Amino acid sequence: MKASEAQALTIGIDLGGTKIAAALVDSGGRILASARKPTRPEKGPEAIVADIATLSASVSAQAEGRPIIGVGVGVAGQVDPATGAVFSAPNLRWKNFPFQEHLETALHKPVSVLNDVQSATFAEWIHGAGRGVADLVCIFAGTGVGGGVVAQGQLVRGAAGSAGEVGHMTVSLAGPLCRCGNHGCVEAFAGGWAIAKRAQEAIRADPDAGAVLLRLAGGDIQRVTAAIVARALNRADPLAKSIVKETGEALGAGAASIVNGFNPALLILGGGVVEGLPELVGIVEETIRRRALPAAAERLKIVRPQLGTHAGAIGAATWVRIGLPPRPFLPS
Amino acid sequence: MKASEAQALTIGIDLGGTKIAAALVDSGGRILASARKPTRPEKGPEAIVADIATLSASVSAQAEGRPIIGVGVGVAGQVDPATGAVFSAPNLRWKNFPFQEHLETALHKPVSVLNDVQSATFAEWIHGAGRGVADLVCIFAGTGVGGGVVAQGQLVRGAAGSAGEVGHMTVSLAGPLCRCGNHGCVEAFAGGWAIAKRAQEAIRADPDAGAVLLRLAGGDIQRVTAAIVARALNRADPLAKSIVKETGEALGAGAASIVNGFNPALLILGGGVVEGLPELVGIVEETIRRRALPAAAERLKIVRPQLGTHAGAIGAATWVRIGLPPRPFLPS
Repeated sequence: MKASEAQALTIGIDLGGTKIAAALVDSGGRILASARKPTRPEKGPEAIVADIATLSASVSAQAEGRPIIGVGVGVAGQVDPATGAVFSAPNLRWKNFPFQEHLETALHKPVSVLNDVQSATFAEWIHGAGRGVADLVCIFAGTGVGGGVVAQGQLVRGAAGSAGEVGHMTVSLAGPLCRCGNHGCVEAFAGGWAIAKRAQEAIRADPDAGAVLLRLAGGDIQRVTAAIVARALNRADPLAKSIVKETGEALGAGAASIVNGFNPALLILGGGVVEGLPELVGIVEETIRRRALPAAAERLKIVRPQLGTHAGAIGAATWVRIGLPPRPFLPS
Repeated sequence: MKASEAQALTIGIDLGGTKIAAALVDSGGRILASARKPTRPEKGPEAIVADIATLSASVSAQAEGRPIIGVGVGVAGQVDPATGAVFSAPNLRWKNFPFQEHLETALHKPVSVLNDVQSATFAEWIHGAGRGVADLVCIFAGTGVGGGVVAQGQLVRGAAGSAGEVGHMTVSLAGPLCRCGNHGCVEAFAGGWAIAKRAQEAIRADPDAGAVLLRLAGGDIQRVTAAIVARALNRADPLAKSIVKETGEALGAGAASIVNGFNPALLILGGGVVEGLPELVGIVEETIRRRALPAAAERLKIVRPQLGTHAGAIGAATWVRIGLPPRPFLPS
């Protein structure tokens, strides 16, 4: 890297359904300045483009004269890898919005748009827990379950920009209904919303068994969340234990499918649900060892992410700096 | 391509548990000569290397003076992408055999070794149903269920050479036992052996419902195979219908997981089970449309393979000609 390139900065934007986070990032993935705003999807996509311009200006003002060579944006939606248009972003209520084009007009800088979880995966690969590994998979279990894949030294974006949707792999043909409309997805077991829902159903089915969970939620079954399950688990509550075991086994079965399908050397397992229920990591690991093919599982390492909630913005900033376009090898 | 390169030929070897097939292949993927031998795993790996040398000499003799620039070998096992050593090939009873090294010594030519299903996938990509598509997945359902993945213009081999094992993705947490030891794999529903096993179990559970199947098998329940199920289906037998529906839905759920995980533009669906039960294709397609995320499924095409049983040898021959090593992008 030339000295001037090393000096240059990029801006990373993490655009989610509830907030827009901006970060001024250096070549080492370090955040030099940050800013955020609530997302206002009801104002339409142009208002979000304007908000991103405001946030970019705000962090740019802290560049201390260093050049800013581009803006990367990670968005919670499916992004066309060829154009940076957003096919679909349900949380933002967008369909087929030429996002990258609008951003370039507003920002007067090179812009790259990619999916937010792919962006976080890219960050963990280049600057986090996956440094130097050519084949890895990230799984982030939070309210939803998302993921990203690096295969043979390339971030896999997919034909329609939606590669890595590991939360919507089916692990139980007739399993619980998922938010996506499918049944038995990993997310329908391991998403924060699904843990809460299954806990509430279990309490209704057997109030005696659910007594500890209900008490921790102040007697209000609607307030039984994944966090309440974590608290009950700390008190060795048998129902919480069984819910966490089922959650880990479903997440582990999904992870085993990924391990068999992609054969990564590294699985990076994180997200709010995993932070809150660290017991899941052991169950997932044990389930992978039991379910995945030995050849794939033997050489697999499982680690936690290193960049936390800033991964999306760091990844987007890093993507616009060094993210290479796919290089298809298509002989004539 | 230079004229001399276009003139040059390569040899492809498809090494399975029962036979070794060799083909002399030109730059267009056409087979100019072929030869085969039964596999004799009991003689040990050196005898197989010697048999491959004999077969190579046999097809080489038909080159009519054109240069033969390499030998590609697709083997039913996990191959180290870095060295061409075979980590594990259960059908051959091999563990950690430096296959490529032994072959180069015996053949005095450049040799490339890869997994046989990855090899067939490579053939369909370069010369078959996947020409010109940068992101595709192959699923071959035969006795077992295997697969292969091309992502962003690269054949995905995996850290331990086992990428694409889509037959061993879990679709039913507590489902039937698979040959791999896991429960509820796609193969435990859609492999030829699994269809036969489930049909036999259904006949035992309800002999009246199983009457047509049993009659077609000459009254011997052990002779109820996937082919018998196909014959009963042609007579509109309700039990055969229900087995095929269940098979297609499990295969479709696995395919939907792959579609969500990799987001390919094309799914190539083939193998003996699909040839014998073409009704599966429609069920798989319908199941994918129902289960996969719309963004991923909308843009997906589903087609049949074009190269048939020669795909493995053609792919191996093509791999040694143009297969590029992974080009990891790992910034320092």
